[in-house]
Amino acid sequence: MSKTADPADSAVSTVRAYIDEHRAAFLDDLAAWLRIPSVSAQPEHAHDVRRSAEWLAARLEETGFPTVEVWPTPGAPAVFAVWPSDDPHAPTVLVYGHHDVQPAARADGWDTDPFEPVVREGRLYARGAADDKGQVFFHTLGVRAHLALTGRTTPAVHLKLLVEGEEESGSPHFRDLIERHRDRLAADAVVVSDTGMWSKDTPTVCTGMRGLADCEIELYGPDQDIHSGSFGGAVPNPATAAARLVAALHDDHARVAVPGFYDGIVELTDRERALFAELPFDETEWLRTATSYATHGEAGHTTLERIWARPTAEVNGIGGGYQGPGGKTIIPSSAMLKLSFRLVAGQDPDHVEKAVRAWVADQLPDGIRHTITFGAATRPCLTPLDHPALRSVARAMGRAFEQEIRYTREGGSGPAADLQDVLDAPVLFLGISIPSDGWHAPNEKVELDLLLKGVEATAYLWGDLAEHWPDAH
Amino acid sequence: MSKTADPADSAVSTVRAYIDEHRAAFLDDLAAWLRIPSVSAQPEHAHDVRRSAEWLAARLEETGFPTVEVWPTPGAPAVFAVWPSDDPHAPTVLVYGHHDVQPAARADGWDTDPFEPVVREGRLYARGAADDKGQVFFHTLGVRAHLALTGRTTPAVHLKLLVEGEEESGSPHFRDLIERHRDRLAADAVVVSDTGMWSKDTPTVCTGMRGLADCEIELYGPDQDIHSGSFGGAVPNPATAAARLVAALHDDHARVAVPGFYDGIVELTDRERALFAELPFDETEWLRTATSYATHGEAGHTTLERIWARPTAEVNGIGGGYQGPGGKTIIPSSAMLKLSFRLVAGQDPDHVEKAVRAWVADQLPDGIRHTITFGAATRPCLTPLDHPALRSVARAMGRAFEQEIRYTREGGSGPAADLQDVLDAPVLFLGISIPSDGWHAPNEKVELDLLLKGVEATAYLWGDLAEHWPDAH
Repeated sequence: MSKTADPADSAVSTVRAYIDEHRAAFLDDLAAWLRIPSVSAQPEHAHDVRRSAEWLAARLEETGFPTVEVWPTPGAPAVFAVWPSDDPHAPTVLVYGHHDVQPAARADGWDTDPFEPVVREGRLYARGAADDKGQVFFHTLGVRAHLALTGRTTPAVHLKLLVEGEEESGSPHFRDLIERHRDRLAADAVVVSDTGMWSKDTPTVCTGMRGLADCEIELYGPDQDIHSGSFGGAVPNPATAAARLVAALHDDHARVAVPGFYDGIVELTDRERALFAELPFDETEWLRTATSYATHGEAGHTTLERIWARPTAEVNGIGGGYQGPGGKTIIPSSAMLKLSFRLVAGQDPDHVEKAVRAWVADQLPDGIRHTITFGAATRPCLTPLDHPALRSVARAMGRAFEQEIRYTREGGSGPAADLQDVLDAPVLFLGISIPSDGWHAPNEKVELDLLLKGVEATAYLWGDLAEHWPDAH
Repeated sequence: MSKTADPADSAVSTVRAYIDEHRAAFLDDLAAWLRIPSVSAQPEHAHDVRRSAEWLAARLEETGFPTVEVWPTPGAPAVFAVWPSDDPHAPTVLVYGHHDVQPAARADGWDTDPFEPVVREGRLYARGAADDKGQVFFHTLGVRAHLALTGRTTPAVHLKLLVEGEEESGSPHFRDLIERHRDRLAADAVVVSDTGMWSKDTPTVCTGMRGLADCEIELYGPDQDIHSGSFGGAVPNPATAAARLVAALHDDHARVAVPGFYDGIVELTDRERALFAELPFDETEWLRTATSYATHGEAGHTTLERIWARPTAEVNGIGGGYQGPGGKTIIPSSAMLKLSFRLVAGQDPDHVEKAVRAWVADQLPDGIRHTITFGAATRPCLTPLDHPALRSVARAMGRAFEQEIRYTREGGSGPAADLQDVLDAPVLFLGISIPSDGWHAPNEKVELDLLLKGVEATAYLWGDLAEHWPDAH
């Protein structure tokens, strides 16, 4: 399905020499960006998220993008850049990524400061190294390598970049932003660089992402913490109510038990199940990467199907009552839950939200009041396996990795589906991260050789896309 | 069952005049004690718990106790005092209370600093005002009023006091302490002043307390927080496991579902159920005191039976994953539960611990590891309704309150049963706190007029006990 690179390919030599020459400066620049703690979920880092946008904008100008703008939103700013091709008939490609990162603190289990990048054994460790600063940043050297390869002064495609600042907070203003700037963002295809590959040895192209709906539920019992001796056994306990909600989320087959949750989902085809099954999946190794001690999930599905193509409900946080040292014999006044739901093609986040709200209200006992707040949802996204632009991505990756590229999906979520909806353009995924990179976890890292393969793949991609675009003249 | 006071009773006039005269100094002293934040559960307050013991010891010396000692333990110290009667044949009574308090912070919902006592509308607000410093302290003025009433220079009973410093931490060293000092603590009866009454209008004597077993359970899933997109739906989530444990604690009839939990319990007699049912119980008012919006508990039992005479399982705290602002799409690495079990007569805490440990191990799914740690248990305690010393307490209370005294039980727990076991003495309860006092809650208070009724009741009690003691010469 993808073309294996010819070792004698002089283009490959040219690109690799160019990358070698600029590698040190590229990595120094990336490290400088990673030092900015652009945590969008934490209000105290709002200033850092803005600094991160400005830093990237300056770097894109240096790269050569003639138009670079920082776009404010009611939350964190996005960065937009355009580098038009000198061929007016060239297709337009919009690259998407994000410059905000997950929360991180040394105390969470990091071996080193999460915002002080260090290289150890060919790996660059820092929050955002893989998710997503590293994968945004390979496009800067990538487009320069493309020009070096082709001898062009402008890219072979009209190249646009949109790098948002709220992805890790569920992209609450992203849909509005892209609707407002729909004309300037117009593209024939979207390239999302916010996903990963199967492994170092099995490079892959992702064809879809799960969506995400999340909510916070506050449960209220007595107006204050009350004595569990005086009142215990005779009034409803909100921590118990929270726990019973979570326990009721799944049935005995680990299927989500919220009525209506599965409405409309697109089931896997036999071909997709076969493609998944062909991948060299080693469950022991996968568990090691997950740092988990067992698999557990929906009956009737493999682990790969569960993480890529089945919707889920997970508890991301639960809290209530006394969590300090020693004991405190109370019935707590309140408890809270953070739940998130991964969605697959065919599921509508609005429908899921309605179903969850109705289900929660129905589950709670008398005397437990509640509020439920949903974040902005991210829609699921799926690209057809036979799309010509997807084949260009697979060819460019194949040249960089010198092997056949296989297909995966991504269990995580991104605003790719919003871009697909608003811009009416197919979404392609180009990512070089691997599962052990530790997204959202302590000691996040990116493999330096893979990061440079990302640079290399983009160096080939723009020419391939321009050449093979269905409407190419 | 108790004698109503004669309004013309000159003893009553004498005692009340004495109390009026010393009331201001008594309250000033109590306020000084309440300012010491003797929170035994919080290591940073260890020094304050020691200060509290020393403060009380000094005050008991001023009161006239010829022997006052601070007894160290491996945790917080207790205070022991003796005032022998000049009648060598008098019975010996040991008064029990505690000088440590529950954790409290202004931010928990206190209207004023919990360790800066204030009087508003006849109520003294402070952590420990009712539980238990106020109720220990009424014995100081009480014994002086007893001497004033009788013209004696020593009490009519050999009076001992033991005021421990770890009750709010489950009295981990109390059993060992009283076993070591068994000879010096020897008594014919124990008077526990660490309970409450039905209400201001319905003074009561408590005949028993529930016991307490508590544990903390840590549940471990992946070795670190992992991305809920990459791994969600395919590995066990320890927060889900914690919630499912809590949900499984009770069956559909709100009975505790841990096998063996109810083994050996002494069921209520028809007379006890009738005495409970005769009390002027107003469920709406009780819910207001509980600040709860509904009742909820074991099927087939009234609310009073549930809180006084039925064992319970409650979640005091639950935590796991991300509880900060915004979202974090993780499967958490760990979760924890603090559970407590109230026990009734006939239940053995060791048996309950074994049952809970076996049940937890049996409930958890593959891939979730756990630890479970039990605190020191408190045994349940029950005094026969027809015990002569219990009748003395009811008479003394009846004179102070000028009405018939009724009988209750106490849902809370204290080390009374250990005293009963080790000293082989009946346990009586003398408390003036009422349900709205807010034990363990924000804005804990004591009603000043009830506090002084406590003083008055003890002024009558020692003479009545000496006179009516079964072995009195």
